[in-house]
Amino acid sequence: MSLLVTGSIGIDCVTTPHGKRENIIGGSAVYFSWAAANFAKVRLVAVVGDDCPKSFDKAFKHPNVDIAGLERRAGSKTFRWSGSYDPTMNEATTTAVVLNVLAEKTPTVPAQFKDSKIVFLAATHPALQMELLAQVKAPKLVVADTRDLWISQYQKELIASLKKVDGLVLNDLEARLMTGEVNLVAAMKQIRKLLKPSGPRMVVLKKGEHGCLTAYGDLLFAMPAYPTEKVIDPTGAGDSFAGGMLGYLAALPKWSPAHVKQAVAAGTVMASFTIQGFSLDGLKKANKAAVAARLTEFKKMLTVGLA
Amino acid sequence: MSLLVTGSIGIDCVTTPHGKRENIIGGSAVYFSWAAANFAKVRLVAVVGDDCPKSFDKAFKHPNVDIAGLERRAGSKTFRWSGSYDPTMNEATTTAVVLNVLAEKTPTVPAQFKDSKIVFLAATHPALQMELLAQVKAPKLVVADTRDLWISQYQKELIASLKKVDGLVLNDLEARLMTGEVNLVAAMKQIRKLLKPSGPRMVVLKKGEHGCLTAYGDLLFAMPAYPTEKVIDPTGAGDSFAGGMLGYLAALPKWSPAHVKQAVAAGTVMASFTIQGFSLDGLKKANKAAVAARLTEFKKMLTVGLA
Repeated sequence: MSLLVTGSIGIDCVTTPHGKRENIIGGSAVYFSWAAANFAKVRLVAVVGDDCPKSFDKAFKHPNVDIAGLERRAGSKTFRWSGSYDPTMNEATTTAVVLNVLAEKTPTVPAQFKDSKIVFLAATHPALQMELLAQVKAPKLVVADTRDLWISQYQKELIASLKKVDGLVLNDLEARLMTGEVNLVAAMKQIRKLLKPSGPRMVVLKKGEHGCLTAYGDLLFAMPAYPTEKVIDPTGAGDSFAGGMLGYLAALPKWSPAHVKQAVAAGTVMASFTIQGFSLDGLKKANKAAVAARLTEFKKMLTVGLA
Repeated sequence: MSLLVTGSIGIDCVTTPHGKRENIIGGSAVYFSWAAANFAKVRLVAVVGDDCPKSFDKAFKHPNVDIAGLERRAGSKTFRWSGSYDPTMNEATTTAVVLNVLAEKTPTVPAQFKDSKIVFLAATHPALQMELLAQVKAPKLVVADTRDLWISQYQKELIASLKKVDGLVLNDLEARLMTGEVNLVAAMKQIRKLLKPSGPRMVVLKKGEHGCLTAYGDLLFAMPAYPTEKVIDPTGAGDSFAGGMLGYLAALPKWSPAHVKQAVAAGTVMASFTIQGFSLDGLKKANKAAVAARLTEFKKMLTVGLA
């Protein structure tokens, strides 16, 4: 099934307890694409400025990522993000952010992408997410991400946009902020009610090193993260998770709740690769064999004999 | 296999967002026993004062709990604990604690309990834990619990005691405090090295609503908590977890790593009952059928098809 992602491409500067990297490639659309590309072809819709470093070109040459929707806008500048992590690695502190081209007009979905069946709207202003979604004809599964900023300052626009999406991925703090509910299961149930009524009302509540809670139709399940001893840089973990999850679903003609569970496991495993290196270093090691091996190991770890 | 627990019996006053209860039965040995008793017979070693309320007698009459080791000490007063929880329910704030009889001489392990094969040493001064352990002849599996107080103020005694136990249960903050390691997988590996070299070096790192990480021999696995929408009172969740886990193992003649996984699932489920009510209210609803049903549901939730 065709899979489209729209999100950011960023020039990142990242500091973690394991080191510092400057002007590395980042952004939600990049992490999502590379993670999803392990399972399915990905259509990328994003925009960079003409300052986008030459060194990023390699990242745009993944055989499973179609960059027909990648616009290099003359006279504009690429999105920049700088952040650092405390030793727990659970939360990024943004030290500098310059929206640049992301504050200009949204990119265009190319004609050949308009029939996309699965759409991931990475976190941005909900009105922009809807503008991009409106360019896709008849999607079957639309999943959006959001951030605390959009929840606290654009609640009305966000709530309106949720009626048009089948799924929302967000973290635990964001879910609490959105609903006022401290209990995460209760928060999920509230969020489900805001989503498109005719869809599966999918909510994936990400908890970083503690895994995630997922609701999909009548299914509700918890899954731990893949236990990782050495976390180098958590940047992009959430988008890699979403990429792994939706890439996995895109490889299937249709999906049952059991498939959704497998997809969440795939997302978890892709996130575990991402955090083992800066930028795309971790995902570059995630070839088919490595992903399959870790996925099998992870599923075995989760299985408790039913006897 | 015979199972012995030694720990506290307390007169608790608890405040949570769901209400306030005064002079209710609590204490590690009580929660542990009631959780373990769902799977196996439990031998209780604990001490109360002569002020112990009559209303507690019912809690001591569980058909699977042998109270031959319960001492009612004349002229002494029962341990008292008062605590409250913030809305996240993740951490208790102790508002008052009076050790009373727990600060006096340790209770005696009755002659008929000295052959116990599994021993749980609930959190207390490590020297007291060792004094109690010394009264058991040839245990096969000794698991201790600890608290931040013993880690920070009695580190030397604690480290010495760990050499004599096969397993340690502790929470994430305690593991970080003990090792200086922020990464929990790395912290567990450090803690394993402190345990009895000839044993399975079992470490269970409890993360409350986020489940737990367990190491046992070469096995290391993460397990989420049972998703619970309405948490009434988290007091005793950790001891109920330990009780469910060791009670499950006590019902088996010997155990493989797969059994340990099942035991951790059993502990998780018993904790989920405890938090659904004040004091023993939740565990009182955990009859054989209810436990079996939730355990089956939980294992199904964890299972991701291996296809």
